[in-house]
Amino acid sequence: MPDSSLNALIEALRRLPGVGVKTASRMAFHLLQHDREGAQLLAQALQQASTRMRHCSLCHTFTEGEVCATCLDPQRDASKLCIVETPADQAALERTAAYRGRYFVLMGKLSPLDGIGPRDIGLAKLFERATDGAVQEVILATNFTAEGEATAHVIGEALKQRGLKVTRLARGVPAGSELEYVDLGTIAHALVDRR
Amino acid sequence: MPDSSLNALIEALRRLPGVGVKTASRMAFHLLQHDREGAQLLAQALQQASTRMRHCSLCHTFTEGEVCATCLDPQRDASKLCIVETPADQAALERTAAYRGRYFVLMGKLSPLDGIGPRDIGLAKLFERATDGAVQEVILATNFTAEGEATAHVIGEALKQRGLKVTRLARGVPAGSELEYVDLGTIAHALVDRR
Ligand SMILES: [Zn+2]
Ligand SMILES: [Zn+2]
Repeated sequence: MPDSSLNALIEALRRLPGVGVKTASRMAFHLLQHDREGAQLLAQALQQASTRMRHCSLCHTFTEGEVCATCLDPQRDASKLCIVETPADQAALERTAAYRGRYFVLMGKLSPLDGIGPRDIGLAKLFERATDGAVQEVILATNFTAEGEATAHVIGEALKQRGLKVTRLARGVPAGSELEYVDLGTIAHALVDRR
Repeated sequence: MPDSSLNALIEALRRLPGVGVKTASRMAFHLLQHDREGAQLLAQALQQASTRMRHCSLCHTFTEGEVCATCLDPQRDASKLCIVETPADQAALERTAAYRGRYFVLMGKLSPLDGIGPRDIGLAKLFERATDGAVQEVILATNFTAEGEATAHVIGEALKQRGLKVTRLARGVPAGSELEYVDLGTIAHALVDRR
C-alpha cells in the first residue's frame, strides 16, 4: 500500500487541469522513481510563482512587479491596444513580431454558463485603460471560439460607444493551407472578410 | 511578456511525463489564475514526497519507513509473493481483495532497449526475498505487454531454477465481455489457458 506522502502527492497532482487519478499516479511514480530533482524544481517553481505573481496594474497580465515589462517598454506604440484572453495568446502574437502596440490581457473570457461575467475579466479596468487618451485603436484578438467571439462582441460594442476605433483579427484561410482541406466555415468567413 | 517565475514554472511542469509546452502553459495559467491554494499544496506535496520517500527494504515499493505497511502486516500470508511492476499495479490488485499474500514491486520492467536491466528492477533483492524460506509460491503479475511478458519469463525461469513454484496471472476474456467484440489474441490465449 502506498504511504501517505505518496497519496498526498497524487491528490495534489489531480488539481492540475486534465489530470485524473491514473495520470497523477503515473506522474508521481515518474518523479519519485526517475526525477527527484525535477520534483524539487517543480516544488520551488510552484512556491515562487504562486507567492510572487500578481496582476499588472495596467494590462492585467501576470507580473512580479507593479507594472509588467511590456507596459513599461517605451518603444511600444501607445496608440494601439490589443485585447487577448490569456498570457499564452499574448505570447503567440509576440512571436509573430507583427505587432508593437500595447496589450490588455483579460485572463479569461466571458462565459455566463460558468458564471464568468464582466467583473471577472476586468472590463472596468479595460475601459479605463482604453480611454486613457493615448489609445486610438483597440484590436480584438480573443479566440475564434463561440465564447471568444461573444467576448469580442461585448467589448467591441462598449468601446465603440466610447468613441474608439475597434478592429478584429481577420478570419480566414491559414497560411500554407490548400483550400481543398480547409473546413467550410473557415472558407465562408474568408469570403466574407475578403480584402 | 510573461515574467521569469512564470517561465520557470512552465519549464518545471514540462518535467512531468506527457506534458509539452502548451499543456504546461495551460496548467500554470490555471494554477495562478484559479487555484493558488492548489499550487501551494502541490509544492508541499512534491517537497515532502521527494525528500521522505524511500524504498521498502523488503518489497522495494515506496515507503516513508524502513519497511512498508504491507510488509509489516502480520495478517498477510507469507507463503505467497506477488510480483508487480509498479505501486499502481499493486494498488489495482489490492482493490480486488482477492489476494492476501505479500508483494515485490519491481518499480519498472526489463527493457534492454531503454538500458533497464536486472539490476535496475532489483532482481538480486527479489531472489533473496523469494528464497527466505517462507515463500512457497511466486505469482508473476507483471503487465501483459511485450516487456511485461519478457520480465515475467526471465524472473520465472530464475525462480524455478531455485526450486520455487511459479505461477502467472491467467490471460483470458475480460469479465462481462461478449466474445464477438474481444480481440483474436485474447480469445486464443483464453483457449490455451482454459481451465
Ligand atoms: Zn502590463
Ligand atoms: Zn514492503
